[in-house]
Amino acid sequence: MINVGIVGGTGYTGVELLRQLASHPEAQVRVITSRSDAGTSVADMYPNLRGHFDDLRFSEPDVKALGACDVVFFATPHGVAHALAAELLAEGTRVIDLSADFRLQDAEEWSHWYGQPHGAVDLLPEAVYGLPEVNREQIKTARLIAVPGCYPTAVQLGFLPLLEAGVIETDGLIADCKSGVSGAGRGAKVGSLLCEASENMKAYGMPAHRHLPEIRQGMRRAAQHDVELTFVPHLTPMTRGIHATLHARLNGNSLKLKDVDIQGIFDTRFASEPCVDVLPQGHCPETRSVRGTNMCRIAVFRPEGGRQLVVMSVIDNLVKGASGQAIQNMNLMFGLNETSGLQQIALLP
Amino acid sequence: MINVGIVGGTGYTGVELLRQLASHPEAQVRVITSRSDAGTSVADMYPNLRGHFDDLRFSEPDVKALGACDVVFFATPHGVAHALAAELLAEGTRVIDLSADFRLQDAEEWSHWYGQPHGAVDLLPEAVYGLPEVNREQIKTARLIAVPGCYPTAVQLGFLPLLEAGVIETDGLIADCKSGVSGAGRGAKVGSLLCEASENMKAYGMPAHRHLPEIRQGMRRAAQHDVELTFVPHLTPMTRGIHATLHARLNGNSLKLKDVDIQGIFDTRFASEPCVDVLPQGHCPETRSVRGTNMCRIAVFRPEGGRQLVVMSVIDNLVKGASGQAIQNMNLMFGLNETSGLQQIALLP
Amino acid sequence: MINVGIVGGTGYTGVELLRQLASHPEAQVRVITSRSDAGTSVADMYPNLRGHFDDLRFSEPDVKALGACDVVFFATPHGVAHALAAELLAEGTRVIDLSADFRLQDAEEWSHWYGQPHGAVDLLPEAVYGLPEVNREQIKTARLIAVPGCYPTAVQLGFLPLLEAGVIETDGLIADCKSGVSGAGRGAKVGSLLCEASENMKAYGMPAHRHLPEIRQGMRRAAQHDVELTFVPHLTPMTRGIHATLHARLNGNSLKLKDVDIQGIFDTRFASEPCVDVLPQGHCPETRSVRGTNMCRIAVFRPEGGRQLVVMSVIDNLVKGASGQAIQNMNLMFGLNETSGLQQIALLP
Amino acid sequence: MINVGIVGGTGYTGVELLRQLASHPEAQVRVITSRSDAGTSVADMYPNLRGHFDDLRFSEPDVKALGACDVVFFATPHGVAHALAAELLAEGTRVIDLSADFRLQDAEEWSHWYGQPHGAVDLLPEAVYGLPEVNREQIKTARLIAVPGCYPTAVQLGFLPLLEAGVIETDGLIADCKSGVSGAGRGAKVGSLLCEASENMKAYGMPAHRHLPEIRQGMRRAAQHDVELTFVPHLTPMTRGIHATLHARLNGNSLKLKDVDIQGIFDTRFASEPCVDVLPQGHCPETRSVRGTNMCRIAVFRPEGGRQLVVMSVIDNLVKGASGQAIQNMNLMFGLNETSGLQQIALLP
Repeated sequence: MINVGIVGGTGYTGVELLRQLASHPEAQVRVITSRSDAGTSVADMYPNLRGHFDDLRFSEPDVKALGACDVVFFATPHGVAHALAAELLAEGTRVIDLSADFRLQDAEEWSHWYGQPHGAVDLLPEAVYGLPEVNREQIKTARLIAVPGCYPTAVQLGFLPLLEAGVIETDGLIADCKSGVSGAGRGAKVGSLLCEASENMKAYGMPAHRHLPEIRQGMRRAAQHDVELTFVPHLTPMTRGIHATLHARLNGNSLKLKDVDIQGIFDTRFASEPCVDVLPQGHCPETRSVRGTNMCRIAVFRPEGGRQLVVMSVIDNLVKGASGQAIQNMNLMFGLNETSGLQQIALLP
Repeated sequence: MINVGIVGGTGYTGVELLRQLASHPEAQVRVITSRSDAGTSVADMYPNLRGHFDDLRFSEPDVKALGACDVVFFATPHGVAHALAAELLAEGTRVIDLSADFRLQDAEEWSHWYGQPHGAVDLLPEAVYGLPEVNREQIKTARLIAVPGCYPTAVQLGFLPLLEAGVIETDGLIADCKSGVSGAGRGAKVGSLLCEASENMKAYGMPAHRHLPEIRQGMRRAAQHDVELTFVPHLTPMTRGIHATLHARLNGNSLKLKDVDIQGIFDTRFASEPCVDVLPQGHCPETRSVRGTNMCRIAVFRPEGGRQLVVMSVIDNLVKGASGQAIQNMNLMFGLNETSGLQQIALLP
Repeated sequence: MINVGIVGGTGYTGVELLRQLASHPEAQVRVITSRSDAGTSVADMYPNLRGHFDDLRFSEPDVKALGACDVVFFATPHGVAHALAAELLAEGTRVIDLSADFRLQDAEEWSHWYGQPHGAVDLLPEAVYGLPEVNREQIKTARLIAVPGCYPTAVQLGFLPLLEAGVIETDGLIADCKSGVSGAGRGAKVGSLLCEASENMKAYGMPAHRHLPEIRQGMRRAAQHDVELTFVPHLTPMTRGIHATLHARLNGNSLKLKDVDIQGIFDTRFASEPCVDVLPQGHCPETRSVRGTNMCRIAVFRPEGGRQLVVMSVIDNLVKGASGQAIQNMNLMFGLNETSGLQQIALLP
Repeated sequence: MINVGIVGGTGYTGVELLRQLASHPEAQVRVITSRSDAGTSVADMYPNLRGHFDDLRFSEPDVKALGACDVVFFATPHGVAHALAAELLAEGTRVIDLSADFRLQDAEEWSHWYGQPHGAVDLLPEAVYGLPEVNREQIKTARLIAVPGCYPTAVQLGFLPLLEAGVIETDGLIADCKSGVSGAGRGAKVGSLLCEASENMKAYGMPAHRHLPEIRQGMRRAAQHDVELTFVPHLTPMTRGIHATLHARLNGNSLKLKDVDIQGIFDTRFASEPCVDVLPQGHCPETRSVRGTNMCRIAVFRPEGGRQLVVMSVIDNLVKGASGQAIQNMNLMFGLNETSGLQQIALLP
């Protein structure tokens, strides 16, 4: 049984970790911290968890208690994991960070986008970007995981097959993304109120969203050179789900080919991936089909047989885009079945 | 392994049966019928089920194939189970009917409310009303189960402790109920369109809803005499969930008592029930805390220490109010753990 | 042209005042104050108002500027109008208070429910409760109006005909009310987030909500003696609308009558009311039919011809439940057409 | 006073025509037809209209009654206006068709996309495409108007300034559009149910939606040569609103310019347009800011000063995307103020 600690458990990624770990056969939550709600029982804050974790209470962050765990998840705002990760690693505790603290390999770039100095530059070389579909082997032996952001997960999984196959132009790429409101977290902000966000659609985060450099970094790795990407996130009146609509142009080489089998490129790339499901030709994925699950569903279209491709990639931003992917990483790190605890089926309707 | 058949599997209770049976360790779906969609694969109709039931297709109803199952669920409009149940029972197949066909013990009353003759009067004596919190022992040995309606489940569970304890007046009872739109099924009706039902609240089914006689029948049994009940259902802009707000007056006897421990009456009544959770005093239950689960959460209030009581009882209308309760019945009938396959935790948020 | 000032204009009742006054033919907004957003232009904060009020900016509260107006609306939290009303009245400015400050005639009761001393006891005798369907004549000559709360408006209008006609028992009355989330205001609270309030239904404010004493006060006046009322508010996943479902028992006198014409009592009571619409028998009102309008729609049922009555009363909590009713009061006070500026038709769908 | 007839008034564009005409100072609805609901009073079907049109009932389509009107709106499925328009024009009645019947100038192309022969080829030469921002002068004298589709309105208004100014490449254009569910009409379809469409996001209509040729036709006219456009519509969990996110690349010429003033191009193009509002730089438009109004709000971005532009264009699909634009056309045709009857302010929240 793996002993698990969670730092910052009162947000939406925190409660999702609890929900999934509650049915994980080989992990047990020992410590969950919250400065603001220390002392409160988990089941009191989250009535869906009544009957589970009945003795678990949020506690003040305590390195000793966390360091006694096999693995600690950070479900915190950026900056917190910087401060604590080294100490925990020194105790032999592995760290899975759901925040942005270790996602960018370039500390200066991180500082630029997050507006503060990087607090753990020394750890960057060993931080592994926890996208199993790309870094599965490194994850298995990692001590420190940077769980990808929600948009970056959906966008990268959609673009990777095309970039790796070298069939698209790498300029003029567009990620037109739609997210549910839970992406903004459980913080009380006017813009996330039901009265503000329901019956409404809008873009936001323009001209530049913090997930852009993370997405670019992953796409650059896949393309093996720089890419030019426009990223437009939109707020959608629903709680969960990201729908990434990706636009790319076939490049000259692939247009010369008599028959570029785009569907085949996706089918092959993800054939053995347990958490990516490529839909049959002609089907559009729905965010609700992955709600509450760790699955990414993808479809690709080439409208009118032209040069433009459209890829649709959907995930649950709180699961494959956060807590589920974090557990997928844990499973890999500890040699467990990769989807252990992650086998829920989406509610429909 | 129990072999399961489902008649009428394309509606919302059908897909819920599949979702729950997919993770049931001791049941396997062998046959699922649909006249309208025979030939379609289950995963094509319900993309949330991709990766499960991959070889299962809807088939034309076929008594032989159904009769080869250990148990058959009817997730059909009323009237269908009347026609087929006897044949299946004759084959030794047990029948769990999610429709209203066997819920009312009085065939004439059934005809009155459903506007057609009762088609299986002979079977009524052995039909067991499948509310485990009331009829657990009969369910265990039943061949034919009438799964309670959604409103009747929420309302009965909320009133039963008070009726059984004899502490309330049995006239002037009020069940002011709020339901999500999925209670109207997957049929294409104008009133169930997002554009009609979202950002809106209204009562419906007035002056009399078909669930009224079913609720009364159960309350009469608990009170051991007639009750007078006003039942007002409301349509709420959400997909799943019933919130039953029940109003009752303490009777003269209980008012004379120095201290009627209403909370204690509920705590005691449901102490050992695996699918009913009485909240601590002062907490109001939320429908989302039971979404996707087979749980009923209940709270009771006595405002200003007066004579009026308010009970709040919430369920997921498609689970404890339909498919989950059906599986709870199956588990009891086949000697399995009562909550086998029913242990999902509600998504929150 | 009436010169209008608004104190506290950044909340939902504030923007509603602006929306309605924008098309009011005889009123012009001169001043709108906000401590938090002084300097911001109104159209920047509320993009729906672009093209209207283009020169209007929120300003720091300033008694002189406000005192130069003919009338000042308070769209503030409780306590603010207490502090400013006397000064404005001294300037000859009339005051229409949308907060709770002058709704309860008993200062002690106010203190009990609002947890602070009443700050303007001297003004209580002249404050007129601004429910035009009850107090039209006093409103016309009033200097200080207490605009009724949202629940109190819906509940009182529903019960008044029955209480005034003396046909119901005045104990055991129940107001089971459902409100959209905008009733909680534009403040950033976790419970009002889309992720918390959508796809959910729950009661709240138990065991006692601040609108209870206000409702009781009005019902007592109509019944001419004390009434016993249970009030249960519920939070509904929509932005606007209150659906009050009211339960009452016919009293002995009216039961003796061969034919109590309940529908007639409502039709007659509201026949000449411009902002109350009694539906034909058998129709249930929908909140969306009054969304954005100053209308209250009402229906009454007597299920199975029994003793219990069910009244349904729907309003838009921000219009007839707040800003629209405030303007209806202004129209009466200044001798204008009572519905001037209030003639919008609900969007449907 | 203009006498108005409406054919097919029971759908969402029909009720929107009624809502807007109810407050139109110079138009009066004389006839409204519906085969399915002939005899029903308008206020019975649409309770938001109670108190307006109280004597108006849906009637069987009758050319004589319609021909007595000054103008007839078709709010019908495609094909209906083909059959009736010539007869009405012969009576001297002007026709404003909200369906697709006269939108494409090429009858063969129409047949290809709508799967049936074009039924009124003779009328095509005189049909005017009713986008006032492009064809204002022709509209004024037109007898037959083809009201643009909802997506085509939002997309064309967003692209026109750039195409007319000749600053973008005309290949690789992308219109990534998000629509509320009312775009699918009031027909009872499973996919439009609240239970199917809420808490969900998906693309649809792939690989090719019927609005594509209409959009291309308008863009071709603006660019004065062919354009290459990818159009991906998405279904969004809300009732009203279209958010068109448009992606284009600056062309070589404009990149050579030291300073392409993109914002200025939009400001200038729409400076005198009463129904288009260009937002100040840096603001993203929200669909709710135009809900219920005939306004199109537009913003343009050039992320990181690069080659890609992003235009956001929002409308209410039932107003500027249908019935409001139809009335704007009527106003122009009859020499009225262009925005007469169209001056409602969006409800917010």
